[in-house]
Amino acid sequence: MPERHEGVTRAFIKNQITGFGYEIVEDNEGGNPLLLPMSEMAGKMAVLLGSNFLQTSHGGKGVMLGSMTGIPPTEVTILGAGSVGNASAHVAIGLGCNVTILNRSISKLKKLESELGGRLDTLYLSSDNIINSIQKSDLVVNTIDQMGNKDTHLITRGMLKSMKKGSVIVDVANDENGTIETSRPTTHDDPIYTVDDIIHCAIPNIPGIAPQTATMALTEATLPYILKIANQGFKEAVLNDTGLRKGLCFFEGNLLHKKAAENYGLDYTTFSELFK
Amino acid sequence: MPERHEGVTRAFIKNQITGFGYEIVEDNEGGNPLLLPMSEMAGKMAVLLGSNFLQTSHGGKGVMLGSMTGIPPTEVTILGAGSVGNASAHVAIGLGCNVTILNRSISKLKKLESELGGRLDTLYLSSDNIINSIQKSDLVVNTIDQMGNKDTHLITRGMLKSMKKGSVIVDVANDENGTIETSRPTTHDDPIYTVDDIIHCAIPNIPGIAPQTATMALTEATLPYILKIANQGFKEAVLNDTGLRKGLCFFEGNLLHKKAAENYGLDYTTFSELFK
Amino acid sequence: MPERHEGVTRAFIKNQITGFGYEIVEDNEGGNPLLLPMSEMAGKMAVLLGSNFLQTSHGGKGVMLGSMTGIPPTEVTILGAGSVGNASAHVAIGLGCNVTILNRSISKLKKLESELGGRLDTLYLSSDNIINSIQKSDLVVNTIDQMGNKDTHLITRGMLKSMKKGSVIVDVANDENGTIETSRPTTHDDPIYTVDDIIHCAIPNIPGIAPQTATMALTEATLPYILKIANQGFKEAVLNDTGLRKGLCFFEGNLLHKKAAENYGLDYTTFSELFK
Amino acid sequence: MPERHEGVTRAFIKNQITGFGYEIVEDNEGGNPLLLPMSEMAGKMAVLLGSNFLQTSHGGKGVMLGSMTGIPPTEVTILGAGSVGNASAHVAIGLGCNVTILNRSISKLKKLESELGGRLDTLYLSSDNIINSIQKSDLVVNTIDQMGNKDTHLITRGMLKSMKKGSVIVDVANDENGTIETSRPTTHDDPIYTVDDIIHCAIPNIPGIAPQTATMALTEATLPYILKIANQGFKEAVLNDTGLRKGLCFFEGNLLHKKAAENYGLDYTTFSELFK
Amino acid sequence: MPERHEGVTRAFIKNQITGFGYEIVEDNEGGNPLLLPMSEMAGKMAVLLGSNFLQTSHGGKGVMLGSMTGIPPTEVTILGAGSVGNASAHVAIGLGCNVTILNRSISKLKKLESELGGRLDTLYLSSDNIINSIQKSDLVVNTIDQMGNKDTHLITRGMLKSMKKGSVIVDVANDENGTIETSRPTTHDDPIYTVDDIIHCAIPNIPGIAPQTATMALTEATLPYILKIANQGFKEAVLNDTGLRKGLCFFEGNLLHKKAAENYGLDYTTFSELFK
Amino acid sequence: MPERHEGVTRAFIKNQITGFGYEIVEDNEGGNPLLLPMSEMAGKMAVLLGSNFLQTSHGGKGVMLGSMTGIPPTEVTILGAGSVGNASAHVAIGLGCNVTILNRSISKLKKLESELGGRLDTLYLSSDNIINSIQKSDLVVNTIDQMGNKDTHLITRGMLKSMKKGSVIVDVANDENGTIETSRPTTHDDPIYTVDDIIHCAIPNIPGIAPQTATMALTEATLPYILKIANQGFKEAVLNDTGLRKGLCFFEGNLLHKKAAENYGLDYTTFSELFK
Repeated sequence: MPERHEGVTRAFIKNQITGFGYEIVEDNEGGNPLLLPMSEMAGKMAVLLGSNFLQTSHGGKGVMLGSMTGIPPTEVTILGAGSVGNASAHVAIGLGCNVTILNRSISKLKKLESELGGRLDTLYLSSDNIINSIQKSDLVVNTIDQMGNKDTHLITRGMLKSMKKGSVIVDVANDENGTIETSRPTTHDDPIYTVDDIIHCAIPNIPGIAPQTATMALTEATLPYILKIANQGFKEAVLNDTGLRKGLCFFEGNLLHKKAAENYGLDYTTFSELFK
Repeated sequence: MPERHEGVTRAFIKNQITGFGYEIVEDNEGGNPLLLPMSEMAGKMAVLLGSNFLQTSHGGKGVMLGSMTGIPPTEVTILGAGSVGNASAHVAIGLGCNVTILNRSISKLKKLESELGGRLDTLYLSSDNIINSIQKSDLVVNTIDQMGNKDTHLITRGMLKSMKKGSVIVDVANDENGTIETSRPTTHDDPIYTVDDIIHCAIPNIPGIAPQTATMALTEATLPYILKIANQGFKEAVLNDTGLRKGLCFFEGNLLHKKAAENYGLDYTTFSELFK
Repeated sequence: MPERHEGVTRAFIKNQITGFGYEIVEDNEGGNPLLLPMSEMAGKMAVLLGSNFLQTSHGGKGVMLGSMTGIPPTEVTILGAGSVGNASAHVAIGLGCNVTILNRSISKLKKLESELGGRLDTLYLSSDNIINSIQKSDLVVNTIDQMGNKDTHLITRGMLKSMKKGSVIVDVANDENGTIETSRPTTHDDPIYTVDDIIHCAIPNIPGIAPQTATMALTEATLPYILKIANQGFKEAVLNDTGLRKGLCFFEGNLLHKKAAENYGLDYTTFSELFK
Repeated sequence: MPERHEGVTRAFIKNQITGFGYEIVEDNEGGNPLLLPMSEMAGKMAVLLGSNFLQTSHGGKGVMLGSMTGIPPTEVTILGAGSVGNASAHVAIGLGCNVTILNRSISKLKKLESELGGRLDTLYLSSDNIINSIQKSDLVVNTIDQMGNKDTHLITRGMLKSMKKGSVIVDVANDENGTIETSRPTTHDDPIYTVDDIIHCAIPNIPGIAPQTATMALTEATLPYILKIANQGFKEAVLNDTGLRKGLCFFEGNLLHKKAAENYGLDYTTFSELFK
Repeated sequence: MPERHEGVTRAFIKNQITGFGYEIVEDNEGGNPLLLPMSEMAGKMAVLLGSNFLQTSHGGKGVMLGSMTGIPPTEVTILGAGSVGNASAHVAIGLGCNVTILNRSISKLKKLESELGGRLDTLYLSSDNIINSIQKSDLVVNTIDQMGNKDTHLITRGMLKSMKKGSVIVDVANDENGTIETSRPTTHDDPIYTVDDIIHCAIPNIPGIAPQTATMALTEATLPYILKIANQGFKEAVLNDTGLRKGLCFFEGNLLHKKAAENYGLDYTTFSELFK
Repeated sequence: MPERHEGVTRAFIKNQITGFGYEIVEDNEGGNPLLLPMSEMAGKMAVLLGSNFLQTSHGGKGVMLGSMTGIPPTEVTILGAGSVGNASAHVAIGLGCNVTILNRSISKLKKLESELGGRLDTLYLSSDNIINSIQKSDLVVNTIDQMGNKDTHLITRGMLKSMKKGSVIVDVANDENGTIETSRPTTHDDPIYTVDDIIHCAIPNIPGIAPQTATMALTEATLPYILKIANQGFKEAVLNDTGLRKGLCFFEGNLLHKKAAENYGLDYTTFSELFK
């Protein structure tokens, strides 16, 4: 994300780097194939992390995430039904939790319902529905990034008071002071902090603790592009694959990322200027 | 149930009737094969009846039992996890409801969980759990008969106030003033009444409105016994099949049902006195 | 549907109303998001209604819709595999029925098979397949609207004779004398009539008996558009959202619906004339 | 089965053989653990064999057992819901067939329904139900052995005429002129014959064509008994394990199988006479 | 496929035939609706054929394809996750096998995982993954056609040595000396041959042994096009349906298939030249 | 377990304690209802613990337990299919792992297969099968207690060398130097140690880190017994409930546990001596 990292951007230009933004490359359906594997891993591991922080050995209140016959099940709320939220839902249901997932797109919720055989509750992402869902939850997983919009927290500090003491929020989106007013980045070494008796975890790069899996999954996604560039040559590859071309941020010292250029007052070059 | 029907009992004796109590006959596993089909039908139809009474066309509050993507699901509480409750659970889950079932036997709950792939919530049948469950429910199905114990209502009149207005209780057990303090029998013609804004339905013979299905299911269950009596003769049949023998209440004017004899001050005859 | 309601259309123009046709608004995938919730509710409730009319308490032949171990299952035929038919299929299978669904699009049938794990029979919508399927069915749900084509009934009066006496047809499409030759509208108060021993039900607005659920589901679908208009202003909203624009039938007394204009001899205005 | 093989029985006695009847050994639940693996294999392979004989390459009518979207599914009838029938049902459903299974025990049918998630039709084993089921079937698998009762064929020759031409009967029970009037043993080399246009297959030892799987499965079942005898010694083993003892047919030339002794006029010795 | 059959192509032109290539006609989603049914049948039947060739009665090593409690399950590898591979996966899982499917498109694999509830292993189609998967497999189904690329066999002759003796390869793609180096066409009469102890089967037209099913499935797919041509006339039909038009290879003696024209040095006519 | 704790046993006698052994109390089916909840929790949490130790943040090799499309799935081996192993299997499958479970009872394996819809591999518990299974596994969960039999380790130190470096063994049975030769108790504070590159975890009381869940689950199981004793009085309760009576180890200073008496040279009193 060159638009967020000025130093790196300037260094890339100075050193005449050619580089792609993994998270911008698109496939034919408009998805982001190089982003997807890490999204899925983060979503799955968020639930496993949450299960840890509910145990006393990690400072939690002593709840086993999952279900036991005859006692009230653990409840999980997931904000967002994209690839991260979808992955979280699969794991939470696999563990036997009651899962509520909230999203503004009914069609995404419907698709997820169909995949999971109706085993989860879906809710339109409204403030009322969020409040009702989080106050009964043991674990809240946030996957929504408000993209810098700090005005409309989906979970305000005030709402924390209605939640059960010792419940856990895992903020996969790492949207500091965004979706969750009280969210701020943590680290793998010091993963959690507590606000108003609610445990918060907002590790930026969750898949980093499973590097073997992450490497295999990411390699598998990038390999087809590497083969394409190797086989066709760089120019042909980016000319033939419009999705790959979208990810081209730097070419031999030229900056092709408009927003980054604007943000840092740098020169912006279009693709067609370079590859006529 | 001869112990509840003095007139019929005396008439049977006077007319030297030989008769079995369907609900007492046992199979090899201690189950009641002649009771089972009607129990299952009652359990399934209770949920369908409940769905009616939630619709405005039947005077309800206008809720569709089931689920719609993005809105809170309908909730169903089932008291008891015997054959009736089990059948209710299958249908309610089939309709897409969130189902909570309460029972005192954890192993029965576990069996049901396994059958339904973990798609329902199970709770130990305690007062706290009942209160928590019914207050969020749209439909409560009671399948527990307190057997004349009128002291310990599982749902008292006071609890109705915590329930959602316009929600429905279907009392399949027809346990008047028993499990549910406010329950009293209704009829197919006049199936419901309302107490404290809660709709009650306690039709005694629910399968009666699906006589074709009921007849086929009951016939199928009784046929093996009829064939046994036809092929072996009456005496051999009851001597060879101890489960069938348990159901024998009257034999040529003799009363073999101890509790009925005690209740009405009648002579009691043991099986072995008759069939030496 | 302005093209079917001349009086309302003229009144809208006279009073300079700005109005959208809910059933014409499109989402990005070409679906009708404002039509969908009511379609799904109608499809689900059609099966519940059908279950009623099979019971003797509603004048039916006394069959419980669903299954009982050891007796032949109840059979349901669904004409059409769009959102209504899909919803009917889910509920009918949830109740334990054997379901056959007919459609001309094999890919729609395939999608439904995948969603339901192969638990239903799918058939190409041909006359032979219809005849074979309805003659073994207890319940037929029609979801196909022939759109005024009265020549080619999919179920003719003659075919009724091959059906089982006392079986039920619920015509969700309300296609009078269309898909089903013998279909004519009924009402919630007087929901059924009988032709050749087959019970017919063709209530036009089925979700109307569950207004609470219907309101929540419809509000959830319309809210994003209302927010869009409120936030962006009317003009921007319809300019930016081509799907919303498609639904604009009236704008300050101008008629933008071509077919309605033709039907009633009214002036027709194009969108681009109004919003240059 | 010593009672069916006089020559072998006499030879065992003469040679002072000690031998168990695999099919008589019982486990704690009264099951036959040494019979079970072959029963299951036979049940599974019967459906695979049936799929062959429906193909033209094996002389059949050219039907693919399974399902194709949009065309009527293939139908399979299974007589008997013991371990063989249960195994056949799993495979036939796995292939996508519509399966009807008939049995006299409702509780066995119920158990199977629960295992298979309601994906099959269950019917009480009556003559009417058999006739209705086989006439729509492409494949009939018989698993019921009438045990020499030749009077009451479940499928008579007359019934074949109502079946579809070219459909297949696989008689796993190999009950010659028993359950199926027209059944007689066939061989792996010459597996089928045709009566009234219905293909019959009644290979006695179906698992014989998958000896590797059969050996592993059978070894696994017998190993615990072999270890028991090896570790405890023969006498202790049969004294301690009443189920194993039931299978003891020959002990050092003594015949412990009552029915065989009666059938062939041989001396019968009780277990307690030998192991006092 | 005119580009592979010169004689037929010339004969069509000479006789002024108008003809469509079934496998080229496209539907709105870019799929090949006339190719799909045979693809699915071939995929399903490939697994059934494979099960045969694992039995000793067909010369195999004596393994039952499927699973038996307590012994290692049979393993199936499927190369390709298109409609053929997808169909093979459904049947192999239905039989109880452990299935690994390999493809280069992660999104196709993900879709299949979702359909099958996570019951199969998916692998990126790389040489390492192929080697690891086939060496533990009992059955390998190939569905990938390298389209004449003979240089890069996915399974080389050398790899056969790492496979289990007596395991079976069914090459549905019939890609002689292509995907599988050792593959060459076989026939229904002589369906298999053995290379390095691995049984090969590469029958070109697998659905041909189930002609009844094949005819029904294919007819159902072609019928809508036939009706369209019948109702609209030939010219209108091909003008209105761009997918149908793509399949038009011959029109009254003109050749509209570019590659065939190039291959055989024939005149090529464009659609627009003919239908102005 | 009084037979393992001499000090506690003597103290109980000295202080005239009346006490039950939770793990010995039996229900009607011979199960141990007071042991069951903790067994299930331990089994479920063992898999969650294992997932931690595979992450680098806990010193593991960096693998995410579960599955990612297109890369080889993680493999889990579970030794033992009792309530602990069963619970582990459910969670591991819920996470998307490939699971192999080994047991000597085929009927237990069959029951589990049926519960999990055939989604796991079952193997007879033999040395060969153990070796084959653990060498491909990322996580091994042991639930088998050899009960002091130190001669026959199921996993010897030598076998560790064939396992993948960095894989994890969680020994729920805490069978030091028993089932797993290299197993020795660890603690929640210091949960793991490494032998030959294999991470070992053998925390004795796993549910202790989820005390809230554990307390609810255990209370629910004990409550019926407490109510029974409270309502009936102590003597009546133990006389009426033979399963409860089996758990009575101490009564007012008398020791009713035979093995403990033998182990420590203490007086043994029978139940009937105390409650005549």
